[in-house]
Amino acid sequence: MNYRAPTFEQLFALRHTTEIDDLANYERFAAAGPELVEAIVKCASAFAEGEYGPLSRSGDQIGARWDDGQVIMPPGFGNAYHGSVKGGWGSISGPVAYGGQGLPFALTTVVLECLGSANFGLNLIHGLTIGAIEAIENHGTPEQKAKWLPKLITGEWPGTMNLTEPHAGSDVGALRASAEPISGALYRIKGTKIFITFGEHDMAENIVHLVLARTPGAPQGTRGISLFLVPKYRLDAQGQPAEFNHVRCLSIEKKLGIHASPTCVMSFGEDGECIGELIGDEGSGMRAMFTMMNSARLNVGNQGVQIAEVATQRALGYASQRVQSARSDGSSGKQPVAIIEHPDVRRMLMRMRALTQAARALVYYAAGRADRSSLGISGAAERLDLLTPMVKAYCTDIGCEVASIAIQIHGGMGFIEETGVAQLYRDVRITPIYEGTNGIQAADLVGRKLVSDGGAALLELLDEIGADSRDEIELEKLRTAVSESARWMLGAGVNDRLAGSYPFLTMTAGVVAGWLLLRQERAAKLHSSEYGERFSSAKCAAARYYLTQIVPEIAGLEAQVRVGADVLYALSTDTLTA
Amino acid sequence: MNYRAPTFEQLFALRHTTEIDDLANYERFAAAGPELVEAIVKCASAFAEGEYGPLSRSGDQIGARWDDGQVIMPPGFGNAYHGSVKGGWGSISGPVAYGGQGLPFALTTVVLECLGSANFGLNLIHGLTIGAIEAIENHGTPEQKAKWLPKLITGEWPGTMNLTEPHAGSDVGALRASAEPISGALYRIKGTKIFITFGEHDMAENIVHLVLARTPGAPQGTRGISLFLVPKYRLDAQGQPAEFNHVRCLSIEKKLGIHASPTCVMSFGEDGECIGELIGDEGSGMRAMFTMMNSARLNVGNQGVQIAEVATQRALGYASQRVQSARSDGSSGKQPVAIIEHPDVRRMLMRMRALTQAARALVYYAAGRADRSSLGISGAAERLDLLTPMVKAYCTDIGCEVASIAIQIHGGMGFIEETGVAQLYRDVRITPIYEGTNGIQAADLVGRKLVSDGGAALLELLDEIGADSRDEIELEKLRTAVSESARWMLGAGVNDRLAGSYPFLTMTAGVVAGWLLLRQERAAKLHSSEYGERFSSAKCAAARYYLTQIVPEIAGLEAQVRVGADVLYALSTDTLTA
Repeated sequence: MNYRAPTFEQLFALRHTTEIDDLANYERFAAAGPELVEAIVKCASAFAEGEYGPLSRSGDQIGARWDDGQVIMPPGFGNAYHGSVKGGWGSISGPVAYGGQGLPFALTTVVLECLGSANFGLNLIHGLTIGAIEAIENHGTPEQKAKWLPKLITGEWPGTMNLTEPHAGSDVGALRASAEPISGALYRIKGTKIFITFGEHDMAENIVHLVLARTPGAPQGTRGISLFLVPKYRLDAQGQPAEFNHVRCLSIEKKLGIHASPTCVMSFGEDGECIGELIGDEGSGMRAMFTMMNSARLNVGNQGVQIAEVATQRALGYASQRVQSARSDGSSGKQPVAIIEHPDVRRMLMRMRALTQAARALVYYAAGRADRSSLGISGAAERLDLLTPMVKAYCTDIGCEVASIAIQIHGGMGFIEETGVAQLYRDVRITPIYEGTNGIQAADLVGRKLVSDGGAALLELLDEIGADSRDEIELEKLRTAVSESARWMLGAGVNDRLAGSYPFLTMTAGVVAGWLLLRQERAAKLHSSEYGERFSSAKCAAARYYLTQIVPEIAGLEAQVRVGADVLYALSTDTLTA
Repeated sequence: MNYRAPTFEQLFALRHTTEIDDLANYERFAAAGPELVEAIVKCASAFAEGEYGPLSRSGDQIGARWDDGQVIMPPGFGNAYHGSVKGGWGSISGPVAYGGQGLPFALTTVVLECLGSANFGLNLIHGLTIGAIEAIENHGTPEQKAKWLPKLITGEWPGTMNLTEPHAGSDVGALRASAEPISGALYRIKGTKIFITFGEHDMAENIVHLVLARTPGAPQGTRGISLFLVPKYRLDAQGQPAEFNHVRCLSIEKKLGIHASPTCVMSFGEDGECIGELIGDEGSGMRAMFTMMNSARLNVGNQGVQIAEVATQRALGYASQRVQSARSDGSSGKQPVAIIEHPDVRRMLMRMRALTQAARALVYYAAGRADRSSLGISGAAERLDLLTPMVKAYCTDIGCEVASIAIQIHGGMGFIEETGVAQLYRDVRITPIYEGTNGIQAADLVGRKLVSDGGAALLELLDEIGADSRDEIELEKLRTAVSESARWMLGAGVNDRLAGSYPFLTMTAGVVAGWLLLRQERAAKLHSSEYGERFSSAKCAAARYYLTQIVPEIAGLEAQVRVGADVLYALSTDTLTA
């Protein structure tokens, strides 16, 4: 069963949750009128369905292959990627000055959703390139921008992000890669990085690595880290890839999922000179990396939506075709019916629908705030900062749950690799881990985001929600619980805050998602003649399910938010591990 | 990291949750005194750790291999299985008259836990053989018992269970395999079965298939189904395997997990005469199959515990060794600490511990009721019937969740196959599916189990819980919610009941597990000098975590229990799938 982009739902969410029409009122985004938005979403869908989708299964089965430092992509992947370069699918939100289309990030969000639903592994290359573009755009010199951005924006030279080292995963500050000054912005790079997505492959003439490293005498921890642009091939005087820069892929990992996305161990400057250009100032690497990471985190949240959408489509397709057992209420006599007619299967399908739409609403809302933040609109940056960890963690948790339900609906067939839903379950499991584990997102929410402004941004958001949620009993209960929990968090010590951070993130994301779906429901009712009865009633049913069934379930986490650290440390580490 | 059986915890749960000492007061189980119990548990642990455990990884990597009808097990598996035959590990609860040890099923439960934690794929053969023994013991003639039971009990001839056909999965009544009478109990069997675990392999000189088929003119549906014993090789006059019985393995499935457990497509009598013996009467096949299935369902619940235990051990081991980041509260200065010291990692570990112990408590409690039921003790059969779907569904859900948390704690390493936790995540995913999907368990609970006695068995259980839960605010709240939900269910129509069946099962299992942990906590306190401070405090901490954190989380499902079917059918099937 092939992926079909949910174009109508995407356009609806762009309009009512991203509020993209309002964005088009700003000069910079004036081009993003309804016609262009619709054209882009439809073309991206067609490209994703036609070019990326058909390769998803074979990409999983064959996988990327390492051969003596080269990484050979599965058949067809190079062509499909070139198609995306030709189609300009990576350039939508890129800066106009360097060949980008300068359109809202929200549109890139929709494009990534389509490409990632169609071919999860291959699509990862786009998100990384977008991150590299942002880092260079925000922290590079005019010369660096002119030199690197045009080819990154077309996608001819894709980008990568090199943080992790064997002993520095979540603790980036502990990294050891070194950068020794040569002259000006040029440094000699040496070190090994692990878990580098698309660190090497055969789909492009050059690869632009962004690498964190330490300069000589730099202070310990994150303040001693600088960001370097390290190409696979150095450019000649004409700006063309020429001399090999001694960036080698030592091996790729054998992973649970995303087999078509090579996860590389990369070595820089091990057997010859590897030259990098400093991006920004020495010691400012983490700041630049956060530029990449924040957008990357939204894109990973988007990945949760991508898998949830495909999983829901597959489950609906299977459940409508698989005929088994008569209805228990006798309404089908002794005739077996499609399993979609059985109440518990229907419960699972409604849950998948509601969760997927909730996750999409969060991602599209955050994307809209990112665009407003880039326009300098008051309050948008703070709102976006608050939303980012929620989007990353809650939407990827949803991706995992929905993929698991898809297996369950397929029964024994779901456990057979041939059916293809097992691939979704394997692929999506990376998303709660990379770009900062979901636990780190939760720590970011209750640590940095909540405490830094004394809770102002969250309480403002909750007030905004409160204006809409008055008649929604369950949502209002959850909102109150989040509000009280936030106040408790602000008065609590750091260990107590962290002890409840994960359930707090889930509750907070749940109240925001519930609110966004409530607003979508109201819009669907208001414009029901425009959207048609079928879409409108489906939207209302999903929103109602989320608001009346899932919101109270999430409220059950309240005890865990305010439990305090004592219950976790009641046992000494020795006793816990005995 | 190798599996180490949690012997102390197992003995504790056998004593205080199974109440095995009380079982030993009955003549039939008089041998099951504390010394023998301890000896068996310790020997089984040593065998599992030493012989089964070391093959688990290679079994996953190499997998069972099909070659022209033969199934070749991974290296070492045959030897390990022969070791279990020699050790008598399959014979513990088998009937004494046929060479079994006649000990309580509760001891088999512990043995299976050890073997399955050590090597999940290989252990599946034991559960199936046990099921075959029970079916023949309860429904076979004396001649059949004498002929087949001794070799099944030693494990020399393992058993299988053949229900599913391509168009008859959960709906067993739709099967088409045929059985044509020859003479007496002998029938000519013809048909194809799918998803047959250990349907074929090279570890035994014969395989005893139990096959559901239809006799000529039998009524449609489940009432027309009979059970047949179909050996791979027919026995000669000396009772030795001789002529091939035309039972062929056509292929094995490529699966998400349990690679070392061949999942076979079996064909009976396709290219020659395949003779089966009728077990029980014609048309009574489903009743006999339920005998197998009920014990198989407890064993699948046990499988949830098996994976949860290993996953917890791996996560604890990794979290104590992986050093990363300083404590956020400043207590470690700038020194990075083992991640077990970080609050959110500790939360995950406590959750794993509490869930694993909750699942084990349920399984051991149910096993004790099974033994009481076989002794004919009043009320035990009803209690067991009620518990069976809860054990199967809730414990396998726990297995899946805990395996996923283990990946999360390993971070990026958890996604790499080499680490081995991904295998747990893949293996366990079958458990909510086979032996009746968890949705079918939920339907069984609210349909058959709850309604058949007007709720009497459940309300009696809840009363018993109530006598202990008076001072436990959260448990008491959940108990009340379950009790009210049960009354609501009894008054509801079938669709409404089924709409809320899954969350109802989770809530009901949660209140029982919470109660069992509460009793364990009290026992640990009462006997703390005997069990030692370390064990006692660890037990209390896990029980407290479950009672104060997880019980209220589960209570959040209440809205979903009583939602009624309307919300699920608000959308027509066409609109839902549009």
